[in-house]
Amino acid sequence: MTTDCTPPTPLLSGLSGPQDVASLSPEQLAALAEELRSAIIATVSRTGGHLAPSLGVVELTLALCCCFDPGMDRIVWDVGHQTYAYKLLTGRAENFHTLRQHGGVCGFPLRDESVYDHFGVGHSSTSISAALGMAVARDLAGEKHHVLAVIGDGSMTAGLAYEGLNQAGATGKKLIVVLNDNEMSISKNVGALSFFLSRNLSAPWVRRTKREVEGFLESIPGIGQDLRDLAKKSQHSLKGFFTPGMLFEAFRFNYMGPVDGHDLKALTKAFEVAKQVDKPVLVHVLTTKGKGYAPAEANPVHFHGVGRFSPETGVCATAPSAPPSYTKVFGKTLTELAEQDKRIVAITAAMPEGTGLAAFAKKFPERFVDVGICEQHAVTFAAGLAAQGLRPVVAVYSTFLQRSYDQIVHDVCLQNLPVLFGIDRAGLVGEDGATHQGMFDIAFMRHIPNMAMLAPKDEAELQRALVTALAHDGPMSIRYPRGAGLGVPLYQNVHAIPPLPPGEAELLVQGDGSLAVLALGNTVEPALAAAKMLQEQCCAKVSICNARWVKPLAEEAILRLADSHAALLTVEEAVLHGGFGSAVLGLLARSGRHAVPARCLALPDLFIEHGPAALLRKKYSLDAEGICKILREMLPSCEKKR
Amino acid sequence: MTTDCTPPTPLLSGLSGPQDVASLSPEQLAALAEELRSAIIATVSRTGGHLAPSLGVVELTLALCCCFDPGMDRIVWDVGHQTYAYKLLTGRAENFHTLRQHGGVCGFPLRDESVYDHFGVGHSSTSISAALGMAVARDLAGEKHHVLAVIGDGSMTAGLAYEGLNQAGATGKKLIVVLNDNEMSISKNVGALSFFLSRNLSAPWVRRTKREVEGFLESIPGIGQDLRDLAKKSQHSLKGFFTPGMLFEAFRFNYMGPVDGHDLKALTKAFEVAKQVDKPVLVHVLTTKGKGYAPAEANPVHFHGVGRFSPETGVCATAPSAPPSYTKVFGKTLTELAEQDKRIVAITAAMPEGTGLAAFAKKFPERFVDVGICEQHAVTFAAGLAAQGLRPVVAVYSTFLQRSYDQIVHDVCLQNLPVLFGIDRAGLVGEDGATHQGMFDIAFMRHIPNMAMLAPKDEAELQRALVTALAHDGPMSIRYPRGAGLGVPLYQNVHAIPPLPPGEAELLVQGDGSLAVLALGNTVEPALAAAKMLQEQCCAKVSICNARWVKPLAEEAILRLADSHAALLTVEEAVLHGGFGSAVLGLLARSGRHAVPARCLALPDLFIEHGPAALLRKKYSLDAEGICKILREMLPSCEKKR
Repeated sequence: MTTDCTPPTPLLSGLSGPQDVASLSPEQLAALAEELRSAIIATVSRTGGHLAPSLGVVELTLALCCCFDPGMDRIVWDVGHQTYAYKLLTGRAENFHTLRQHGGVCGFPLRDESVYDHFGVGHSSTSISAALGMAVARDLAGEKHHVLAVIGDGSMTAGLAYEGLNQAGATGKKLIVVLNDNEMSISKNVGALSFFLSRNLSAPWVRRTKREVEGFLESIPGIGQDLRDLAKKSQHSLKGFFTPGMLFEAFRFNYMGPVDGHDLKALTKAFEVAKQVDKPVLVHVLTTKGKGYAPAEANPVHFHGVGRFSPETGVCATAPSAPPSYTKVFGKTLTELAEQDKRIVAITAAMPEGTGLAAFAKKFPERFVDVGICEQHAVTFAAGLAAQGLRPVVAVYSTFLQRSYDQIVHDVCLQNLPVLFGIDRAGLVGEDGATHQGMFDIAFMRHIPNMAMLAPKDEAELQRALVTALAHDGPMSIRYPRGAGLGVPLYQNVHAIPPLPPGEAELLVQGDGSLAVLALGNTVEPALAAAKMLQEQCCAKVSICNARWVKPLAEEAILRLADSHAALLTVEEAVLHGGFGSAVLGLLARSGRHAVPARCLALPDLFIEHGPAALLRKKYSLDAEGICKILREMLPSCEKKR
Repeated sequence: MTTDCTPPTPLLSGLSGPQDVASLSPEQLAALAEELRSAIIATVSRTGGHLAPSLGVVELTLALCCCFDPGMDRIVWDVGHQTYAYKLLTGRAENFHTLRQHGGVCGFPLRDESVYDHFGVGHSSTSISAALGMAVARDLAGEKHHVLAVIGDGSMTAGLAYEGLNQAGATGKKLIVVLNDNEMSISKNVGALSFFLSRNLSAPWVRRTKREVEGFLESIPGIGQDLRDLAKKSQHSLKGFFTPGMLFEAFRFNYMGPVDGHDLKALTKAFEVAKQVDKPVLVHVLTTKGKGYAPAEANPVHFHGVGRFSPETGVCATAPSAPPSYTKVFGKTLTELAEQDKRIVAITAAMPEGTGLAAFAKKFPERFVDVGICEQHAVTFAAGLAAQGLRPVVAVYSTFLQRSYDQIVHDVCLQNLPVLFGIDRAGLVGEDGATHQGMFDIAFMRHIPNMAMLAPKDEAELQRALVTALAHDGPMSIRYPRGAGLGVPLYQNVHAIPPLPPGEAELLVQGDGSLAVLALGNTVEPALAAAKMLQEQCCAKVSICNARWVKPLAEEAILRLADSHAALLTVEEAVLHGGFGSAVLGLLARSGRHAVPARCLALPDLFIEHGPAALLRKKYSLDAEGICKILREMLPSCEKKR
């Protein structure tokens, strides 16, 4: 595999569609695979993206295009971060350079983007359920196309995948599940199931036992037809006992494999057989994450999702030295606190690196638990720990915490158990787009009784929020954004950090009584900047309050501001309905402050597309200029009032 | 088993605690089992409750008390509706007659109720995760007690249980999972897994094959030690191939069973062995739902959860002839609509009876899918159907839909797919209590982009809402309460029902401009009654508006009322934060109507305890008297304004 960015050979650009792939010779297919990898590396090295997953399924994607008709047959990709080759082959080669850019090709399958994207994804483990729905719909309509789910072994650990598998097996519908087994989710896979997948086949004792049994059966002379059949059954059974086949057969799937996922001939052969099976069939494919690009093969965790890098060396573009990220501060502070507080147990759902817990895991392996892609279990497991007096900390991306809503309600909050939710990537996440924006956490958590919720204005306040939450005797969540902090000085001795008093806001700027801004979390900084701009433009001095608490609200401070200002503006990087602003409106109504005009600035009632977070903030008026513009709009009416 | 309500013999009342059970003789234990059943039947026949599940585990509960120390060992019951015998044995015999009554014994385990209830439950499939958390906590603390999860085979179909099993197996922690296999969830179990549980062991072909293999192995003369071992292995493997043991061994659990769940001696023997195992062990127990009470054994679906009945005959108390329930009207109307609309597919998660779909299932078996206790899968599966042009209808209780939040966001709404959610038991459900109140659906759905939401005022409007939703080209949910409708005339020809125009409210009473009530769903009726009372008491004529739409809001009507009234009151049977009222406040703020005082009446920011729904409505001011009282409170301030 060469990594130089030679211009595409005519193979890829010469394809009129995925249907042309089948007519290529083996040599041409091999060349096309090279070309796809080059195109992926060339683009992702510039745009960032999910490199290793996509490189791992190049041959698999080609084989699917050879054996199936992606226009007619429904291929449902699980998670969808592995679909770059698929996108290149299905009409998006020309625009592929716009990957993950605003208005460009999405990093995940998207029904609106292409007729070849049969189901939109981004979160894990939905593919079998969705594909089963499509298979049932096909049979009701009397149609004959194939339906496939392509799912990684990591995604297979989530309960949703199991639910789909369990029902698919029971219905007996014709359905092909392709298990893309690369032994990883994002990091190393966990869970009992992972022991059963491919690589254990080569364990010496398994091979030895199999050989012995085979030898034993062969050694019996003159056995009749019945016995020969029995022998076969026994062999089959024994094989099943030691292979993943057993597990999937238990779910009434026909099991095929394992197949070398980089051997096009073997793959197409397997798929041709699978096509003939008139019931659920699982094709077990072994792939190497990052295949064909040495740096990614060597470090698939790093290259799972990367920023810009040098395609030649694999060395990542060094960002201009930025302050430490919220994630890093979270992980570091928690680790320091855990030195003295032995009750702390850190939990991640397959994201030890992404949530900043890798250092914690290294230092306190016995108090660190990676549950795999199982956000539901993570939360109920945490509830079990908390019921025994421990202080579990579930660190999870806002968007993925959505999958634990019922567990947060039923297992944690109903029992008022002290589970701490570290909600990373809250707000706009940028290039990953609509499936990954962390915009709903306030709306889906604020209404749950007993849940407290903090949104620190910067990374030092995140440290304080952590201390606060650990001192709180009930469920609490802390939401903080993706990316670098503001570069403020951090607390050096975390054990001496004073907790934040519940429901206490921080008045940062006392204004002239015209407008007061209640800013939450990462909108405090642009609100301050907006106030400065406004003062320069209009001489109005706006009060700026760091609201801090989503729940309990800083009622006293908010009412004081309402009583002393002509109007209020709430600002948050979260969806409008059910958000912080709506909490403030409720407070104003209930306390009889209805005469105070209040406006809520938040993300609109829309799914937010992919693009750089800064661009999206600008678009949705959540940057300093946007906030300033709204303050200016509010000012005349305030002036009139005064 | 006799069913006469003889007063309790001294056995149960003579116990000072569960620790006394172990010292009873086999005869005494058998008598105690009888006594427990009598007490359960006597109480549930008066209070209603989960009869069949609790009768099925009487011996299992006794065996647990014999072998474990429920005060020290952590027994986590899954769902918890099977814990009546456990409650009787752990200090709650005296008050057991108050079961499910307001202020009385809860129908589910509750940490606040007893130190023997180690984990609160109500929803399914949480036990393994919670128990694993407790086992990890135990080991961190260096303690030695046992941790058990008691889970039904129905609960085992949910993904959360699988996630817990998968991680428990991987950690290798000492943990006992008791699989209470009664071949049912609430109705007959579904899913591939269920084929693998106990009863298939007796399938003739399995027995025959096993016999043949055994015979074959025995027939070989003079085999050496190695071969004998191999033969054993082969046998074990073959057994594994056909038994549930295989499946659980795949998850690295030691498998024990199946054990007769009504044979105390066998149960205690199994548990004594399980206690010695120093890793995860699963004890497979076969029970009969409703055991010992002939009517319940004969009809365990009906007796899963029952109202009052005659203990002698099992005949249910005939309720004073009530109008048909919302559930029934929903199921009947959907069935009628499906006759002409071939796109309709009805989906339930193990609740064909509870959601009123049993008739649909009978009439259109090919368009009815019971996915088992898999709410997540139900929704993503529906998204797959909808992506192919069908009109899936997911009928589910409000409280259980919580488990699908992420699937509603990510699979349905993000792709704007026309999935219809029939949200049954929305609002107060009564005796099942805090785990089952349907109070969060508005708050967790209203903020999701693309989701439309209707709350009909009565059962005829529910019919119209269904027609409306099926004509809507996107996700829509309809929330309706538990229990009987108002008895209004129903549409006879469902095909001629006109859809409700989006965002259009219905002004029921034009008042005198003092107050306007925006009532939602089942609060419309008490609001009308409250207005009548108020008129009699104070001569004020309040406007009453049936708001109908949670989303899109009936903006025009609401603003018109705001402009023409001195104050507004919103009323809904749902949690305050993020609810319908908060949507109205947002509208008023955004449209500059902040000067209009508005008050929101809703359920408070608390988990609502168990008790009769009427009593809870009274307590939380959601009945006519409560609404009237609040209107009276609002009136003076309105008078001042005018």
